[in-house]
Amino acid sequence: MWGKDFALVKAAHSTTDKESLSHNLLGQRLGRKGRDTRERILAATEKLLAGPPETAISLSAVAREASLGMTTLYLYFSDLPELLLAVLDPIMASAENSYVGHLRMHWPDDSLTENCLKFVEAFHAFWVRHARILHLRNNYADNNDERMRAYRISSSQPMITLLIKQMESDLPPGRSPVSAMATVLMTGIERTITVATDAYFQRLMTTDPTIHVHNLLVAEARILELGLRDGRATSRRGSAST
Amino acid sequence: MWGKDFALVKAAHSTTDKESLSHNLLGQRLGRKGRDTRERILAATEKLLAGPPETAISLSAVAREASLGMTTLYLYFSDLPELLLAVLDPIMASAENSYVGHLRMHWPDDSLTENCLKFVEAFHAFWVRHARILHLRNNYADNNDERMRAYRISSSQPMITLLIKQMESDLPPGRSPVSAMATVLMTGIERTITVATDAYFQRLMTTDPTIHVHNLLVAEARILELGLRDGRATSRRGSAST
Repeated sequence: MWGKDFALVKAAHSTTDKESLSHNLLGQRLGRKGRDTRERILAATEKLLAGPPETAISLSAVAREASLGMTTLYLYFSDLPELLLAVLDPIMASAENSYVGHLRMHWPDDSLTENCLKFVEAFHAFWVRHARILHLRNNYADNNDERMRAYRISSSQPMITLLIKQMESDLPPGRSPVSAMATVLMTGIERTITVATDAYFQRLMTTDPTIHVHNLLVAEARILELGLRDGRATSRRGSAST
Repeated sequence: MWGKDFALVKAAHSTTDKESLSHNLLGQRLGRKGRDTRERILAATEKLLAGPPETAISLSAVAREASLGMTTLYLYFSDLPELLLAVLDPIMASAENSYVGHLRMHWPDDSLTENCLKFVEAFHAFWVRHARILHLRNNYADNNDERMRAYRISSSQPMITLLIKQMESDLPPGRSPVSAMATVLMTGIERTITVATDAYFQRLMTTDPTIHVHNLLVAEARILELGLRDGRATSRRGSAST
């Protein structure tokens, strides 16, 4: 189910990366002034995103913040999701150093506990840093915005592939039990972290927020560990019998 | 974090159950005709919900379907979430027989595999039956509708408590590791089933939908089993040391 979509995402990304950075939406090549204006729009959006949770995020709020007219804004971004995707690009690029890179290393059996916790904590810290825009991305995705959905999948897909590798499976990502286990583990981790970084739950946990969130992260890390150990056992039984 | 909210939900529920069934929103007692009109509104809503996924669900669509004016509709339901909550009431009452009841029985160690799978499959079947309204509920909840959020929590909370019991813990639901494990397990199961019953993913899995969803349910059941076994081991170590 993820495979097909991933191809779609790759295509979407290369468009964002190359064309939209050098041309405006009328197809005009961006000169220095144009690039400056684009940067100003992105900076204004980031400023609004960093504000208190009730700050409205809309194209008109961004235009106001950047002191630009709507007509100018529309030359660069045709709607809010498109603008948010441009803000997301450098954030998702930083995911590699924040948590993806750690998952890329092979975690030995005897240090699986610490590595799982370190990974879950790093993933959570990344979400805490970018909570507002990641929740917006997921809301758009859940409400059928195809670009945001593809973008969200593109950030999970490599992690599922890496989890399959952590299970020492040499099967390609697909319909194998190990692949289903990796998908379900990743889905659970993402959801727990989404809930734990939600502004509403932040408000609920007023008595001692840190300790409680930490309990959930420890439990999530424990499930990851149990799932990985189980996947490794399956993979090793598979190799032993061939 | 769930505890406080649960009290809130209980209060919200008793209001729905008693007052709104016998009075309209002007506080007038509902006679037979009034009850018939209310039923007609609920039946029209259910009909729309059972339609194809692109069917618009709005108060005006419901009024049209029920051949009623908006003024009449507003005598019974002040907005769409309130109407959806009234439709949800009998559905959530049927959850007991669909999947909650199964979780209420103690699952012995040697049949944990089958029981976990049976539970996850039953939970999924319930979602398949009521996919549209459950997704609407979750969308409203994720977009900060307090009533829907409370309602969603009220359907998870008893399951988390039952999972804690399955782990043979005699600790009250709270900040214990077993409680965090139960919360995280339930969060993962709900999310996987939410994704698996999403109209978009249904479309993606056109080649062989059943087999693939089944793989995910088997993996989710396996994680539940691993989590429960781990929780039981923790509880038993706790009892042995006291």
